Amino acid sequence: MPFAVIMAGGRGERFWPRSRMARPKQFLNLIGEKTMLQLTVERVEDLVGISDTYVVAGAEFKDTILEQVPKLPEENIIIEPFGRDTAAAIGLAALVLGQKNPREVMIVLPADHYIGNVRHFQEVLRSAVATAGRGDKIVTLGITPHSPETGYGYIHRGELIDTFAGIPAYQAVRFLEKPDRARALEFLSSGDYLWNSGMFVWRIDMLREKIEKHIPSLAKGLKEIKDSLGNDHYEKTAKKVYSELPKVSIDYGIMERADNVLVIPCDFGWDDIGSWTALERYIEKDELGNVLHGEGVLVDTVNTCVISKDKTVALLGIENLIIVNDHDSLLICHKSRAQEIKKVVQALNDQGFDKVL
Amino acid sequence: MPFAVIMAGGRGERFWPRSRMARPKQFLNLIGEKTMLQLTVERVEDLVGISDTYVVAGAEFKDTILEQVPKLPEENIIIEPFGRDTAAAIGLAALVLGQKNPREVMIVLPADHYIGNVRHFQEVLRSAVATAGRGDKIVTLGITPHSPETGYGYIHRGELIDTFAGIPAYQAVRFLEKPDRARALEFLSSGDYLWNSGMFVWRIDMLREKIEKHIPSLAKGLKEIKDSLGNDHYEKTAKKVYSELPKVSIDYGIMERADNVLVIPCDFGWDDIGSWTALERYIEKDELGNVLHGEGVLVDTVNTCVISKDKTVALLGIENLIIVNDHDSLLICHKSRAQEIKKVVQALNDQGFDKVL
Repeated sequence: MPFAVIMAGGRGERFWPRSRMARPKQFLNLIGEKTMLQLTVERVEDLVGISDTYVVAGAEFKDTILEQVPKLPEENIIIEPFGRDTAAAIGLAALVLGQKNPREVMIVLPADHYIGNVRHFQEVLRSAVATAGRGDKIVTLGITPHSPETGYGYIHRGELIDTFAGIPAYQAVRFLEKPDRARALEFLSSGDYLWNSGMFVWRIDMLREKIEKHIPSLAKGLKEIKDSLGNDHYEKTAKKVYSELPKVSIDYGIMERADNVLVIPCDFGWDDIGSWTALERYIEKDELGNVLHGEGVLVDTVNTCVISKDKTVALLGIENLIIVNDHDSLLICHKSRAQEIKKVVQALNDQGFDKVL
Repeated sequence: MPFAVIMAGGRGERFWPRSRMARPKQFLNLIGEKTMLQLTVERVEDLVGISDTYVVAGAEFKDTILEQVPKLPEENIIIEPFGRDTAAAIGLAALVLGQKNPREVMIVLPADHYIGNVRHFQEVLRSAVATAGRGDKIVTLGITPHSPETGYGYIHRGELIDTFAGIPAYQAVRFLEKPDRARALEFLSSGDYLWNSGMFVWRIDMLREKIEKHIPSLAKGLKEIKDSLGNDHYEKTAKKVYSELPKVSIDYGIMERADNVLVIPCDFGWDDIGSWTALERYIEKDELGNVLHGEGVLVDTVNTCVISKDKTVALLGIENLIIVNDHDSLLICHKSRAQEIKKVVQALNDQGFDKVL
């Protein structure tokens, strides 16, 4: 049975004021009753027992994780001393899991993505686990693009390499950074490019080999941490090592450099829900395109989304706004600017309103 | 010394959520520290002693009035059993004051208007009191229009009749209802039309004579009430009479029909502050035309007014909005719709949110 490693270290500023420093997006129930983390755990439950499910996050989130996933063994939370991008976090997880079975497959999943067709997702994952289990390939899930997004990395796929359980896997030729609009349009029309979903499947020994080869400084640091595993100076060592680790993403550090990466094109209703407007796609609207979660009236108002925790809201002559009224903060944002909420978070921080961050 | 009668019966829905059923506009400190009522009382203090200042309002506002104007003798609050438009309210005041001195001058002032040049206002009022004091004329204050407002009644002025202390008074030829845009433009360009300010000056006996002549049913009702003045069945009588009184404005009932009305053209920075956008003219803005009363950040935001009692507000990419965040309610209104806030109040009422009205 493979291991699942759920990456829950994200900051999620783009959902301020619902997301906060202390409660980023992965811990919010943005869609339905369950939080993004709970949904992520649930999706792999059939494939991976909870005792083989791990969550990587900062120490400040430990209590929240245990509260949201009470059946998760406490020792399955892998604490990062601080954020050092994905290569370090995944490397640390591989170190911990390698102690158990270095020849086992490890699935890496972001904690804050939405997947519409869970059954299809599980089929793909089963195929990826089987392929990666043979030990010579890294498998990544690429999302079939439906629009020329400039907010995602892309994977250029090459020739068909293998098919398992009817699911084809292609050579991953290149991992590309977020493109500009023109390139994104090219990518979309060519049909040979997929969105990089951040979901990876590999055998632990294979990953460690790649880290050794492509990010030797990380390999060295991890070795130091390994020697302290189970000792009482572990925490101190981890902190020291981490502070000196290179800040590099797994995409840039490994995937882009490895020559044995396969990509499975996926079309299971994936969304990273990167903004309020992205989220809004999954909320039912009235006939004028409005959402009102909370109480109040919308007069001569169209295409506007109101999420209000308290207070009676009244809108008059409004269009194309996102309005989020949280317990101590109120965000009012034009929909065309929903991608830029980080600017608001930055401004609040600069002007001393960090109490609401 | 004349009497001042301050009309404080208005409902002020247009300032929801700051104005409420229980606290209409005249009791709010919309501009500066003092409430509109306090400013109104203050403006006539040099001319009229506080013991000759009267306030007409519903019983529900008695405590608020005494709280806001503590030196006002309690018996100077003239309680209307319920609202029956201005003719009834002014008639009732005339009845009460007539008991003291029917040959004295009575100044009628709305409680919720803004006046920029108080000194000039007082000069005009002195002149009006002197003119009305001779006993043969009704004097009204007409505001020199600076824009083709469709929200005010107009007074058509005729020939110059008199000048007192350098202040000319003209024959008032007609009182006109709120015009449409085309007529308002005509009025403005002709130069012979003034806004009806709702401020009137007359001798009490003159007013009573006019009521007798033009609204006999009101005269009859007031006589009934008069007979009960000081008796313990006063309240019951007033209620009964009031419920049968015609609902008519002083403009329509008296001013339009009387032939001895003078109008003094005034230009002392008058504003009835009929909406949030009207109010906004008196609030200092930043260089992008924004107002932020309360705490928060305005990112890429222009020409927007935020009044926030609590919560940290963050705006991104917003223009031309009025945002009022009160203790239990949140209004977001496009500036072009600020005149229509009654629609919001109506919708809130219709949908059962009367707890915030």
